[in-house]
Amino acid sequence: MRVVLASQSPARLATLRSAGIEPEVIVSGVDEDQVTTTDAANLAAALAQLKCRAVAAQVDTDVLVIGCDSVLAFEGEVFGKPGGPAEATARWRRMRGHSGVLHSGHCVRRGDQEFIETASTVVHFAAVSDAEIDAYVATGEPLHVAGAFTIDGLGGAFITGIEGDHHNVVGLSLPLLRDLVGDLGIRWTDLWNRPS
Amino acid sequence: MRVVLASQSPARLATLRSAGIEPEVIVSGVDEDQVTTTDAANLAAALAQLKCRAVAAQVDTDVLVIGCDSVLAFEGEVFGKPGGPAEATARWRRMRGHSGVLHSGHCVRRGDQEFIETASTVVHFAAVSDAEIDAYVATGEPLHVAGAFTIDGLGGAFITGIEGDHHNVVGLSLPLLRDLVGDLGIRWTDLWNRPS
Repeated sequence: MRVVLASQSPARLATLRSAGIEPEVIVSGVDEDQVTTTDAANLAAALAQLKCRAVAAQVDTDVLVIGCDSVLAFEGEVFGKPGGPAEATARWRRMRGHSGVLHSGHCVRRGDQEFIETASTVVHFAAVSDAEIDAYVATGEPLHVAGAFTIDGLGGAFITGIEGDHHNVVGLSLPLLRDLVGDLGIRWTDLWNRPS
Repeated sequence: MRVVLASQSPARLATLRSAGIEPEVIVSGVDEDQVTTTDAANLAAALAQLKCRAVAAQVDTDVLVIGCDSVLAFEGEVFGKPGGPAEATARWRRMRGHSGVLHSGHCVRRGDQEFIETASTVVHFAAVSDAEIDAYVATGEPLHVAGAFTIDGLGGAFITGIEGDHHNVVGLSLPLLRDLVGDLGIRWTDLWNRPS
């Protein structure tokens, strides 16, 4: 089966690959500003659906298309990617020692069949020092990701723990995706197309 | 600073690398059967210490040595690596839909200074089908790891969620290691020796 990931996120691609699935990548080019809801879980779902549908319109109806979008909810605010080093630093000074919720919307589509769900994972941030924040932001790594942290990179040491699915924090929940493709009538293990 | 990982686990090495640390690897060759405690957390700590000390004895006193060992506690039993496909299959039929606790012992040593601690993460297993178990075991992946599951590989879709540090489940808790090297007077970000 042809599998298409409607996302330009290298972390999502790496997550699928580690789980045995080598997808094609087609970037949707969706304008994310057209969605204006302020509810984090709904926002992630709406953007995932937009990306998925935009790409599904470009491929045959027997192709499985996966769209995802992630945001961090923290103290009533929605954090996407930070605008720059200053914003990343300011966020980390607020987040350290506290917790947020990473919401990743997932939309799967094949032909006219579509299923959407958001997975939510609680993330506990370590009480990092100013020097650690400065060193982390200086690497540039947190500037390119929702919530300004990389649990699968340098930021891994700065997350004390989570509650929920780790891969969802990276941007694509594998157990949720297994459920959604099951709803489409596809057996998860039939998607394995990479040598282990 | 020279950093040595006293473990032959490719997953632990990959975890350190993803977190910005490229260590040398020296395998201890410790006979794990010499530790007979049945408490999972104590067992993991004792084996981590044995590995760490065996390697520390081979290097200079200014080298940071990291030893780790992981076991899964499930319904009062301690699960290390499965003995073969039949044992891996039998375990998954018991574990599916239930939860276990992955304990990873960590020992850091530099010169005469040594710190040991075990991190424990609750792991929730999905209610996978017999066919999924058979397909997973047939890949060989679960045969080589403590607890017979790979949250960072094909098994990722079969873990619905965790409570605690994900990297601890893989075999090396980055936030705990950050704390332990801090106890040795080493700043975590000074260990970053890989380009991001």
